[in-house]
Amino acid sequence: MHNVKSAVCISCGAEHEAGNDTYTCKKCGGILEIQYDYPRIRSSLTREKIAARQDFSMWRYMELLPIEEGSRLTPLRVGWSPLYRADRLGERLGLKTLYIKDDGLNPSASLKDRASAIAVVRALHSGMDTVACSSTGNAASSLAGNAAAMGLKSFIFVPERAPKGKLAQLLVFGARVISVQGNYEDTFRLSAEAIEKWGWYNRNAAINPYLSEGKKTVSLEIAEQLGFKVPDYVAVSVGDGCTIAGVWKGFKDLYAIGLIDKLPRLISVQAEGCCPVNRAIETNSPIIQMEENTIADSIAVGVPRNGEKALRAIRESSGLTVNVSDEEILAAMRLLGSVCGVFGEPAGVTGTAGLCKAVEQKRIPPDATVVSIVTGNGLKDVASARQAAGEPIRIPPDMDTLMAVFRERNIPV
Amino acid sequence: MHNVKSAVCISCGAEHEAGNDTYTCKKCGGILEIQYDYPRIRSSLTREKIAARQDFSMWRYMELLPIEEGSRLTPLRVGWSPLYRADRLGERLGLKTLYIKDDGLNPSASLKDRASAIAVVRALHSGMDTVACSSTGNAASSLAGNAAAMGLKSFIFVPERAPKGKLAQLLVFGARVISVQGNYEDTFRLSAEAIEKWGWYNRNAAINPYLSEGKKTVSLEIAEQLGFKVPDYVAVSVGDGCTIAGVWKGFKDLYAIGLIDKLPRLISVQAEGCCPVNRAIETNSPIIQMEENTIADSIAVGVPRNGEKALRAIRESSGLTVNVSDEEILAAMRLLGSVCGVFGEPAGVTGTAGLCKAVEQKRIPPDATVVSIVTGNGLKDVASARQAAGEPIRIPPDMDTLMAVFRERNIPV
Repeated sequence: MHNVKSAVCISCGAEHEAGNDTYTCKKCGGILEIQYDYPRIRSSLTREKIAARQDFSMWRYMELLPIEEGSRLTPLRVGWSPLYRADRLGERLGLKTLYIKDDGLNPSASLKDRASAIAVVRALHSGMDTVACSSTGNAASSLAGNAAAMGLKSFIFVPERAPKGKLAQLLVFGARVISVQGNYEDTFRLSAEAIEKWGWYNRNAAINPYLSEGKKTVSLEIAEQLGFKVPDYVAVSVGDGCTIAGVWKGFKDLYAIGLIDKLPRLISVQAEGCCPVNRAIETNSPIIQMEENTIADSIAVGVPRNGEKALRAIRESSGLTVNVSDEEILAAMRLLGSVCGVFGEPAGVTGTAGLCKAVEQKRIPPDATVVSIVTGNGLKDVASARQAAGEPIRIPPDMDTLMAVFRERNIPV
Repeated sequence: MHNVKSAVCISCGAEHEAGNDTYTCKKCGGILEIQYDYPRIRSSLTREKIAARQDFSMWRYMELLPIEEGSRLTPLRVGWSPLYRADRLGERLGLKTLYIKDDGLNPSASLKDRASAIAVVRALHSGMDTVACSSTGNAASSLAGNAAAMGLKSFIFVPERAPKGKLAQLLVFGARVISVQGNYEDTFRLSAEAIEKWGWYNRNAAINPYLSEGKKTVSLEIAEQLGFKVPDYVAVSVGDGCTIAGVWKGFKDLYAIGLIDKLPRLISVQAEGCCPVNRAIETNSPIIQMEENTIADSIAVGVPRNGEKALRAIRESSGLTVNVSDEEILAAMRLLGSVCGVFGEPAGVTGTAGLCKAVEQKRIPPDATVVSIVTGNGLKDVASARQAAGEPIRIPPDMDTLMAVFRERNIPV
């Protein structure tokens, strides 16, 4: 924490001392953003210094993280997910240089582990023994998993529509799971009341400004994995707004300390059935609540809690907005799976779906370098995957039947 | 491949030239094992040389792999899964030094990626464009994923009981999936016929001796991650027999080239409802077919195709056998989840279940160093996880109800 300077309100600009109880602006109630002593970091942190580190997890960027010295870190391997060069997929789309960052390979199988790792480390360091959050699923399972690994208790509030895979994960991680008969907004409100009442550590990403700092490590890694050559575009799915805000913060921090010399443009992708952030950008108006109508449950957020940070990130980066249908999401799932061997959940591949659409609409030049972040593993939502993928060929164990079926269906062997 | 010396029959000892068509012994039909020019490797490969490598995947051990020079490697990040020190779990069990190797964090979420990576690399190098296998699920999805990433076609034969998560993965990876109305044995036979007829690359692990070579990388990593200090015991679940054989081969190879100075004892864990390998050891008799009665589908193999190699591994290592009930498997799943934050599928945690039982039975000294390999991710079989974990607390979005429920159920907040 010796590099953390303050927590600045993104609405009114008020500067606060960064502390455990500093979640929102004391002046206007706005969302805070952690600021570091960039000149200080700049003077000591070099590309070479980072490259020499043997810690291949998000903790390799400790100078840029809001972690107190001497904190016990989560033992799980969070971060340093692979960045795959995806030439065949790029060719299909008509893009010269495409990379896929597979964050579904984190311990609890989503990018949210990066934020939850920060939460449990900070909670433990503050002497708390219980963490809590509301979540459509991924923030929750990542919190439950990281809490278990650290020996902390967890209370998790999920809306009743959360897919079974995510619930099972939570329960196996030993969390107390409260399934709320209502939408995400209802769930969030109840969790906030309970957290307030019982004084648990609050991992609701929008309210807790430290969590974006964990998420930003995905960008620190992308930059390092590309030899600090910044891509022209980064495509990512957007729900609550915290992830795209974190992605942007990562690049901005690297820019501030001089490790990169340009910033990427963000491609903010939402589901057509729930795109309040993108609609606000497209109509240049405030965020207005929307229904939550999409297969991509992790980004079905009608009232984005971190919308302001998301809007700012998209605008500052001269970003693009793309809205995709559930069919386009399922098509992207098939494409990533069958061409790259990467299996993402619906919300996880929504960024790629939007990228496909933007390229098709000629909004991305074919010679651009693009990174598409896959934010969660497809195994989290098998029902959707089945919808994307269809059914197997069912036959008795008999060679003649097999040959007949191949002939009938015209399957080349 | 310049280090590969021959393929030796484990039954009759006949030595064969290692080639693409060399799958079983030409003299007696036995299973083959790949042998390397160990003195040659010994003279050039050092711990320091390995430690300096920047490739954090299974390919960092290229000198010990049956890969032709100039082969294109799978772009997916296979291997180098985390080895977690599990002090709190060790304390619970009464073990001083316990490590969990989480192989569920491989690209397709199981240890089988290690074998499939070898398969696709060798297939492509031999000019083949199609790979195939029969599998209860994990070998299949790993083959489909790695094939997709390499641009190869895949045909996958699965028994009809394969869990939906695994099927969905296969289909999203673009594999042709044949769901066989029969057991694993029926499925295996049909796949063998089809592979023979159409000349596809055969990834059936028992028949293809190169695949164990991929699996052995889990042991190379365990050794390196422990600073080449070999654990006293390694616990692993056993089905077909290929994984435990691979685990053993890895340690033996390291021993042969002088990078380790002792060998671990293996703990071979099977489900009570399907334990033909362990029964053969326990009764000192040949392997006899068993029913496939267990929740742990990935190791429900009534006729282990690689039983001979497994038996030899257990015997050579002075190994232990442990058979566990489905209840013990589910308990291990809860334990790993809630204490370590590691979520394994039933077969994935069976090794840990057996370890728990063996410690309880005082068959493992409390001061031993033990590694338990978790071979697959719990998200692959959510139904079982639900069985292990129970149900969430379902309530309307109302604080009073929440407080009442906590009081009723005596939940500390």
